[in-house]
Amino acid sequence: MATTQGPRSTATDERGFPRFWDEERETMPRDRRDELVLARIQHQLRYVYDELPFYRRHYDAHGFHPDDVKTLEDFTRKVPVITKKMLVADQQANPPFGSYTPEIPAADLARVHGSSGTSGVPTLYGVSRRDWDRAADVHAMAQWCGGVRPSDLVQVGFPFGLFFGGWGVVQGVERIGAALFPLGVAESEKHLEFLERLRPTVFSGTPSYCMHLISVAQEAGVDLRESSVRTLLVGGEPGGSLPGTRQILEEAWGATLVDAGSTSEMYPFQTNVGCEAKTGTHIISDEVFPEIVDKDDLNVPVPEGDRGAVVYTHLWRESQPMIRFAPGDESYLTHDPCPCGRTYPRLPEGVLGRLDDMLVIRGANIFPSAIETALRSVGGFGPEFEIRVSKRGALDEILVRAEYDPGATAGDAASTEALRARGEATLKRITGIRVPVEVIAPGSLPATVFKARRVVDERARA
Amino acid sequence: MATTQGPRSTATDERGFPRFWDEERETMPRDRRDELVLARIQHQLRYVYDELPFYRRHYDAHGFHPDDVKTLEDFTRKVPVITKKMLVADQQANPPFGSYTPEIPAADLARVHGSSGTSGVPTLYGVSRRDWDRAADVHAMAQWCGGVRPSDLVQVGFPFGLFFGGWGVVQGVERIGAALFPLGVAESEKHLEFLERLRPTVFSGTPSYCMHLISVAQEAGVDLRESSVRTLLVGGEPGGSLPGTRQILEEAWGATLVDAGSTSEMYPFQTNVGCEAKTGTHIISDEVFPEIVDKDDLNVPVPEGDRGAVVYTHLWRESQPMIRFAPGDESYLTHDPCPCGRTYPRLPEGVLGRLDDMLVIRGANIFPSAIETALRSVGGFGPEFEIRVSKRGALDEILVRAEYDPGATAGDAASTEALRARGEATLKRITGIRVPVEVIAPGSLPATVFKARRVVDERARA
Repeated sequence: MATTQGPRSTATDERGFPRFWDEERETMPRDRRDELVLARIQHQLRYVYDELPFYRRHYDAHGFHPDDVKTLEDFTRKVPVITKKMLVADQQANPPFGSYTPEIPAADLARVHGSSGTSGVPTLYGVSRRDWDRAADVHAMAQWCGGVRPSDLVQVGFPFGLFFGGWGVVQGVERIGAALFPLGVAESEKHLEFLERLRPTVFSGTPSYCMHLISVAQEAGVDLRESSVRTLLVGGEPGGSLPGTRQILEEAWGATLVDAGSTSEMYPFQTNVGCEAKTGTHIISDEVFPEIVDKDDLNVPVPEGDRGAVVYTHLWRESQPMIRFAPGDESYLTHDPCPCGRTYPRLPEGVLGRLDDMLVIRGANIFPSAIETALRSVGGFGPEFEIRVSKRGALDEILVRAEYDPGATAGDAASTEALRARGEATLKRITGIRVPVEVIAPGSLPATVFKARRVVDERARA
Repeated sequence: MATTQGPRSTATDERGFPRFWDEERETMPRDRRDELVLARIQHQLRYVYDELPFYRRHYDAHGFHPDDVKTLEDFTRKVPVITKKMLVADQQANPPFGSYTPEIPAADLARVHGSSGTSGVPTLYGVSRRDWDRAADVHAMAQWCGGVRPSDLVQVGFPFGLFFGGWGVVQGVERIGAALFPLGVAESEKHLEFLERLRPTVFSGTPSYCMHLISVAQEAGVDLRESSVRTLLVGGEPGGSLPGTRQILEEAWGATLVDAGSTSEMYPFQTNVGCEAKTGTHIISDEVFPEIVDKDDLNVPVPEGDRGAVVYTHLWRESQPMIRFAPGDESYLTHDPCPCGRTYPRLPEGVLGRLDDMLVIRGANIFPSAIETALRSVGGFGPEFEIRVSKRGALDEILVRAEYDPGATAGDAASTEALRARGEATLKRITGIRVPVEVIAPGSLPATVFKARRVVDERARA
């Protein structure tokens, strides 16, 4: 289980390419892999306990010691989880990267990226050179699983900046030796123009962006089914594994959709990846180990196939290793054999939803508390607001309806319009995405309904 | 002169790092380098004549044959130049990359990038895997010359997308093994925030963006001289070598400015790079060979030290090799010894200006013809307009003053405002940058003055 420099595979696919990136690793029998995973877990537990104050404090507080883990079940039952909230607090107390990472001299630090996080203050991710190099290989393995080959030309519609998203795609494509066209954020018409001029075989972006391009193409009289794209490599939000979204995208693009994405904290994030058999997302479990546990007690495993909370563990990261990180995802898992030959566990329907109140809107994680912070900072809004979350197709949309403060805002069209604009600008700044605001009259919202919970979730009804 | 995988240097600098990326190559005596350069020129001429229809046609039409070049002077005197206009026409006739590049299968193609070009249709650049890998090494050599070391953390303010700019910075930083924070296009407040949180030692962006951050910092009460940045690695526009701009930036940032940038066509573009001796930009002439020639006859060399037109030649590129490419830059060159020890020729004041009518505004190349195309496509403007180009500090700014068409536009505030907005949106789309438009009354412009030439260049008066 050293870093692969693939492809290493005796089997070949129908195009004559190696079938696997690392055949031995990807097709290993479960019991053999479990042994290796357990050894890595024990290594990581000792490492984080000995070297990283965040984990030492956390484990001591829970009376846990690394020596307590003799089996994989011990791991689930005995190791306390960590959450995003804990990471944010630790990073604020221990800038710039938190005490859950070792001090890394710049010469050993490859990258810094970040997330918009829960409070408007981005969480920073520092990635060591060894981790970054290894991540490139894992991304290559994942993309290879999804069908990317050296003969492909990959057009990327993910942004390149603070967020990991697009950069992981770059890493995998470069390591595979495919051709990369990293157009990134550009006018959708440009993306369409280059689809025609360059004839890429793979398009990579969020499901919602791939969905958006369908509309743009229709308006331009372009039929995406006629395009050269045969694979959509998506991630950044859950849509890609939802049957409805998948069907719409595959039919409109005339392409196979591959969902490949977990969360930024679990970088390399393409450890959840679909294969050509379309049996759900494989989890590269000897890199990022997944557990499905009881959502009310994250130390209790659920029977295989039952729904529960997802908990992830980095088996190889030395920088910012996540050990039993609970992102709040809900899913179920199976080890049933996949026709593709990989023995990794699968999430047959990907990630089903979020357990806590974190909203995922167009790929961004948004907590209601961040919206509250934004509205409160504007001046002119009253105390009451609601966050309406709805589904457009399979993707979530958001609308903030907020009462104006009659003591600060006249309530005529001009003043509420100005307030709306200020609110949206502040929400954009704090959440990183566009959040529409509707300014409503004081007393519009029944305070009793929204006292404890401001989110009106219309998704269940859809 | 094989691809370097540096650093290879016996000398060390004051921080204990190797002094050069490739000491032998960078400090080679001129006559020895000239021999190697001539051999590469002869190789490239044979290659492009035999393999690339664009060059074969061009050279046949001018009665030139590669065998005619026995000396470097032959090269200057006998080989016809190529221009951007020729490349654009050839690429349009031979999509997607033009007949000035060989057919490259996707497996041998590393990257596709592009330029907004002269007409609104981006010119595409296809880079072979071998060229891309070599470019990484050249960028590393250039950045090493500019003082970047493995101990540095580099925050990047260049965009990552169609344009090469930021990606070359990524390549060099990765090859050197420094830490990279590729924030890219983000709110300036975010750049400032991370300057404080991460304490990067290098900031990389356009001179105008570095200038802009000075204002943003002042407004925020932040003193950039107190920041951790000790090197500004700039490019994308000429400002970085102009003494006035350099002085303002170095004083406000408390940092050393290194100008490193040529043109996209000449990728790897950081072959023009400053060193710590501040003697101008070295040209890595065994990678990209520069000539200074008579601006009225590009086959006539000028005496060393005299001003003339810059002509560049790729000595190693196999994909889209540029042989005697004349970007329209004016400069002068010297081989006088530099205290840094490098024997590369230098442009003591960088690129001085543009010889033709191409405008360079905030790093984008803009031809007056593209502005005319944009205005003509809007509907509502009259026939007359002018392009006012001025200096703000050492950087160029543009304003388009255009008469409205009284037959199509009422001329009241609302209609001219709408026309202005449409004009600016179209100019943004076609030129890729924001070009302010002032809508003026018909007859405001004296047609005689602007009949042949619409550019009002106020830079000379500044």
